[in-house]
Amino acid sequence: MYSFICDYSEGGHPSILKALSETAFEQNEGYNYDKHCKNAADMVRRLIGRPDADVYFMPGGTPTNTIAVAGSLKSFEAVIAPSTGHIEVHETGSIEATGHKIISVDNCPDGKLTADIVRRVVGGFEDEHTVVRKMVFLTNPTESGTIYRKSELEEIRKVCDEHDMYLYIDGARLGGAIMAESNDVTMEDLGRLCDIFYIGGTKNGALMAEALIILNEKIKPDFRFHIKQRGALTAKGSVLGIQFEALLADNLYFQLAAHSNRCAQKMAKGIAALGYSFDVDSPTNQIFPILPKAMIDELHKSYEFYEWAPYDETRSIARFVCSWATPEEKVDEFLRDFQALSKQFQ
Amino acid sequence: MYSFICDYSEGGHPSILKALSETAFEQNEGYNYDKHCKNAADMVRRLIGRPDADVYFMPGGTPTNTIAVAGSLKSFEAVIAPSTGHIEVHETGSIEATGHKIISVDNCPDGKLTADIVRRVVGGFEDEHTVVRKMVFLTNPTESGTIYRKSELEEIRKVCDEHDMYLYIDGARLGGAIMAESNDVTMEDLGRLCDIFYIGGTKNGALMAEALIILNEKIKPDFRFHIKQRGALTAKGSVLGIQFEALLADNLYFQLAAHSNRCAQKMAKGIAALGYSFDVDSPTNQIFPILPKAMIDELHKSYEFYEWAPYDETRSIARFVCSWATPEEKVDEFLRDFQALSKQFQ
Amino acid sequence: MYSFICDYSEGGHPSILKALSETAFEQNEGYNYDKHCKNAADMVRRLIGRPDADVYFMPGGTPTNTIAVAGSLKSFEAVIAPSTGHIEVHETGSIEATGHKIISVDNCPDGKLTADIVRRVVGGFEDEHTVVRKMVFLTNPTESGTIYRKSELEEIRKVCDEHDMYLYIDGARLGGAIMAESNDVTMEDLGRLCDIFYIGGTKNGALMAEALIILNEKIKPDFRFHIKQRGALTAKGSVLGIQFEALLADNLYFQLAAHSNRCAQKMAKGIAALGYSFDVDSPTNQIFPILPKAMIDELHKSYEFYEWAPYDETRSIARFVCSWATPEEKVDEFLRDFQALSKQFQ
Amino acid sequence: MYSFICDYSEGGHPSILKALSETAFEQNEGYNYDKHCKNAADMVRRLIGRPDADVYFMPGGTPTNTIAVAGSLKSFEAVIAPSTGHIEVHETGSIEATGHKIISVDNCPDGKLTADIVRRVVGGFEDEHTVVRKMVFLTNPTESGTIYRKSELEEIRKVCDEHDMYLYIDGARLGGAIMAESNDVTMEDLGRLCDIFYIGGTKNGALMAEALIILNEKIKPDFRFHIKQRGALTAKGSVLGIQFEALLADNLYFQLAAHSNRCAQKMAKGIAALGYSFDVDSPTNQIFPILPKAMIDELHKSYEFYEWAPYDETRSIARFVCSWATPEEKVDEFLRDFQALSKQFQ
Repeated sequence: MYSFICDYSEGGHPSILKALSETAFEQNEGYNYDKHCKNAADMVRRLIGRPDADVYFMPGGTPTNTIAVAGSLKSFEAVIAPSTGHIEVHETGSIEATGHKIISVDNCPDGKLTADIVRRVVGGFEDEHTVVRKMVFLTNPTESGTIYRKSELEEIRKVCDEHDMYLYIDGARLGGAIMAESNDVTMEDLGRLCDIFYIGGTKNGALMAEALIILNEKIKPDFRFHIKQRGALTAKGSVLGIQFEALLADNLYFQLAAHSNRCAQKMAKGIAALGYSFDVDSPTNQIFPILPKAMIDELHKSYEFYEWAPYDETRSIARFVCSWATPEEKVDEFLRDFQALSKQFQ
Repeated sequence: MYSFICDYSEGGHPSILKALSETAFEQNEGYNYDKHCKNAADMVRRLIGRPDADVYFMPGGTPTNTIAVAGSLKSFEAVIAPSTGHIEVHETGSIEATGHKIISVDNCPDGKLTADIVRRVVGGFEDEHTVVRKMVFLTNPTESGTIYRKSELEEIRKVCDEHDMYLYIDGARLGGAIMAESNDVTMEDLGRLCDIFYIGGTKNGALMAEALIILNEKIKPDFRFHIKQRGALTAKGSVLGIQFEALLADNLYFQLAAHSNRCAQKMAKGIAALGYSFDVDSPTNQIFPILPKAMIDELHKSYEFYEWAPYDETRSIARFVCSWATPEEKVDEFLRDFQALSKQFQ
Repeated sequence: MYSFICDYSEGGHPSILKALSETAFEQNEGYNYDKHCKNAADMVRRLIGRPDADVYFMPGGTPTNTIAVAGSLKSFEAVIAPSTGHIEVHETGSIEATGHKIISVDNCPDGKLTADIVRRVVGGFEDEHTVVRKMVFLTNPTESGTIYRKSELEEIRKVCDEHDMYLYIDGARLGGAIMAESNDVTMEDLGRLCDIFYIGGTKNGALMAEALIILNEKIKPDFRFHIKQRGALTAKGSVLGIQFEALLADNLYFQLAAHSNRCAQKMAKGIAALGYSFDVDSPTNQIFPILPKAMIDELHKSYEFYEWAPYDETRSIARFVCSWATPEEKVDEFLRDFQALSKQFQ
Repeated sequence: MYSFICDYSEGGHPSILKALSETAFEQNEGYNYDKHCKNAADMVRRLIGRPDADVYFMPGGTPTNTIAVAGSLKSFEAVIAPSTGHIEVHETGSIEATGHKIISVDNCPDGKLTADIVRRVVGGFEDEHTVVRKMVFLTNPTESGTIYRKSELEEIRKVCDEHDMYLYIDGARLGGAIMAESNDVTMEDLGRLCDIFYIGGTKNGALMAEALIILNEKIKPDFRFHIKQRGALTAKGSVLGIQFEALLADNLYFQLAAHSNRCAQKMAKGIAALGYSFDVDSPTNQIFPILPKAMIDELHKSYEFYEWAPYDETRSIARFVCSWATPEEKVDEFLRDFQALSKQFQ
């Protein structure tokens, strides 16, 4: 059995484990104050062209999202998210558990918020009887693997500026967006356009580590209190800093993401070549082919992957994810198996 | 200027004020334990045919909704509501402030949840990554003045039973639903179909008082703790009990609601007779005619009411609300004025 | 049976009920925006000598305390209170339910915080691992009926200024403090020394109404959102405003408080004259004599009051409370009964 | 400079890093469902003699404490803790941020709760106006390094049984308690006496990992929802499971703790031999000698450690902590330096 279930099936990249081993007996300050966190934060600042950024290393995506939102908003301020957004669907109400409303928007094209959608939601604000629309949450790449164009982000930024709102990007798989063939957004663009965003490590080679980046001066002052209160101020902070030092050295982070994309796109091309269509056209490491249910059952004998959603009577949408650790041979092997099966089902 | 803005413009019904005056020097136990609360609770129990019901008197609609939801759910359990529901739109995120998610549903027909909609939302539950769908929230009459048919409530009840969910009805204007001409739901039906619901007093003659009714044994045990913790365990509880004694004596509550409905329906008929259509066909005390914007401006010189929502280039949806205290002559006067203006705008 | 249990046993003062009756058919704006709320707010502003104050009328003590604290603090900021403080002991964790810590201080002399105590607690702050000490909560009169001297409040104010903290006073029985014989604090002093405080109506003749007063500019801007979100933005706001208009007209509020004090102090003098001592020397409307348990049992045959706490093997501390509505004859009658019983128990 | 600041200065133990390296390319299920978590959970179950225990691996102490409390309690239920307890002092109000009150107890002997103290606090419960006392929180070893006797835990267990309360033990440094020379508590005792407790890995050789153990059937059912909602359901759960497999293999966990204790006790003996006394008599890896301030200043030139609290005019309490990675030579070196300095200051 080989698994295309997700990009967090494998452990940590060898460079990370090597760095952790080499530093095991170093004595470091706790709670993100150590030299590795400082160094990794500087690397992040250079990467995004923002020497003024505050950078915190966090132990997972859900606490990062939760603290980014709860740490930026007053109790009556809300965050706007697509109804397919991770914080809306797959974090068990963790945002609401901190007291904040998510204004969820249905029918976002390709799972993406647009400036017009945001403007419409902002228009729903009345007075103290309604929550204040204060933050736009988006994921890049989205939960469907699609990516934002630079112009789209710039238009959303403009709405945020018009209405004194924050733009937050959940970058759990950010490397994949940046390295997608069709992408025109740079890390510097994110440094320029966001108020707060995160670079996800866990889904791209880290054991567990995300880099949360705060650019807006209004959000910065109290942030260490928020991180500690919400349980994510890691005692052995250096363990997180060291992971990001390794990921950001020699462009490793982006090479790993490019690899994941390349594997998934190869699979997509192979599947498409056999005449199958896709639920959504994703240029990153998740792909969503529409397959006969019977074929899915056969594939499941050798491969793990999600039967994502029903499509019609006989077909379902499947999801295949490749990771930094996916061997290209496994993709080739899968495509051979797929082709063989395909003949049966045509 | 006469106001058709809402049904809480006036103060308390004379019977209520008389009862409060007559009992002013009585000494009563605090916190809902007094004889008036007990008596009023018994009256409620008889009214709904449920001698086993727990009944609490509360000082307003928002705390009642918030406590009903927060007091029934575990932290990771969510409530399903129409996207037009009061708790979703007009309570400033008070449900979320207690830590609970509202799963908001767009495009509910006439602002009403249906069994099918609820079933679809329940289908979105996966596992510990998603919130548990545990409560259905609906308003009767809805925020658009429409009412639920008995069969509709019964079907929703069935879905709730299938999925171990609670049915909660926000009855801020419940009298209006019960007294609507087309209504086939009785108070006993509510006693039979709901797990928890409230009979709104404030919008039907009380100074401020709602009767929250708990029928499900699972919700009952801790409820006084929830009411106290959320700030709604009124010290002078008798002040609430006395109001409901007065409202439920001699059918006053339903007479007042019938009066509000009658006034509003008379307005609606008069407006319709002049050829205007309505955004929604409401049989209760709120009506939503579609009027030329210029006509609305003219009407605003003599009457207060909401320009509720834009309709098209030249027209808006208006909202007129009648109350227990609306003099029928004011309705007649309005219709005369309206007719006169109408000629101008045709 | 006559009850000295508390000062919220009776209903509303006749002046209040008269005003509510006379205005029952007036149409008023909702949510504290009506002319009565505006007028009553002006009366409050004049009373405390602060024309710049924001004044909100609230439907009870617990929501007032909760919203005062939650509406002033960031999530990681805490409030300092005596371990006997109402928010610490008798509000079922309502402050914590909004996410805020109470730093509770044991052994406050006479139930009162002192500048030294506050300084010591502030000294416990370290960094982002500890909550920020941001608000001082005190009750005047305290839960033991004692009152603060002007100099004591001024010293606490000084500590607050030194450490950028807010001073909040829970004035559930504020009239009693102001009218106590030994008092030297004026309403203007409170207007000068507090950042936020409330004048309690419910325990001094109102049906249910408190006036929350905000003086610090930092707390003001978002307050209506907090009141709405926490469920205390009363739809028929005029019902609250009218109560305070009546209470503040012709000095009624202070006359009622003086009456309560006078009755309780007469009881205290009569009890002391018979040789009984008191757990605490309260100059307001609550008194705490130490009485033989057997005597308490006898008294309970004719009077309701709390056996407050055990004192020694044979004696308990009792609590007797007089209210605005206590007839002086009842006090005399009690003292006669008490004297008679006293002979038995000596 | 050598640091005795804390026991999380160093990274992960070589066995852990080896295991993580060896498994880096394994594909595992996410979210604690992988084979390593399952195996490590079985090891924990055997260790505590409770095959029925639910075991979750968590990424840090604060989220573990927060989720243990918030996941066990209803909103109006509170946890009793010493005023020196970690959740009370050093977690920035994280418990309260989930809505729960901590009832903090001053003057606990040696930082330890006793059955009598718990009984006294339970006695403060009245009714729905007070929080329900539902959980006892204690740390073993305490924040002062002291440990509980088996008989003390048994007596506290008895009070918990009498009052239907949960006993929770924060075992951030649990290994140190178990391996202390004077200890008579076994891991099986904890499995028998607690409703829920955790075995801390981070302060004893893990990169970041704690094992939360649930024994009470009432707490078990919803726990994965709580962990996910509070942000601690680690995607690469195997990374946590692998750490505990390594720690629990060949008794490593207890050997490391024994080493930390031994180093600290050697320091303590050396310091005591020179005539210095201690603030508290700790048998574990934290020691608290009372030293001249001037001596502390000198020591700080070569060693990092906390000046913990003032003692008198000229002396302070210092805290020295040894870890699993402290080389014994460093202790010897310190003692030589200390002895030399000591002559100067006598």
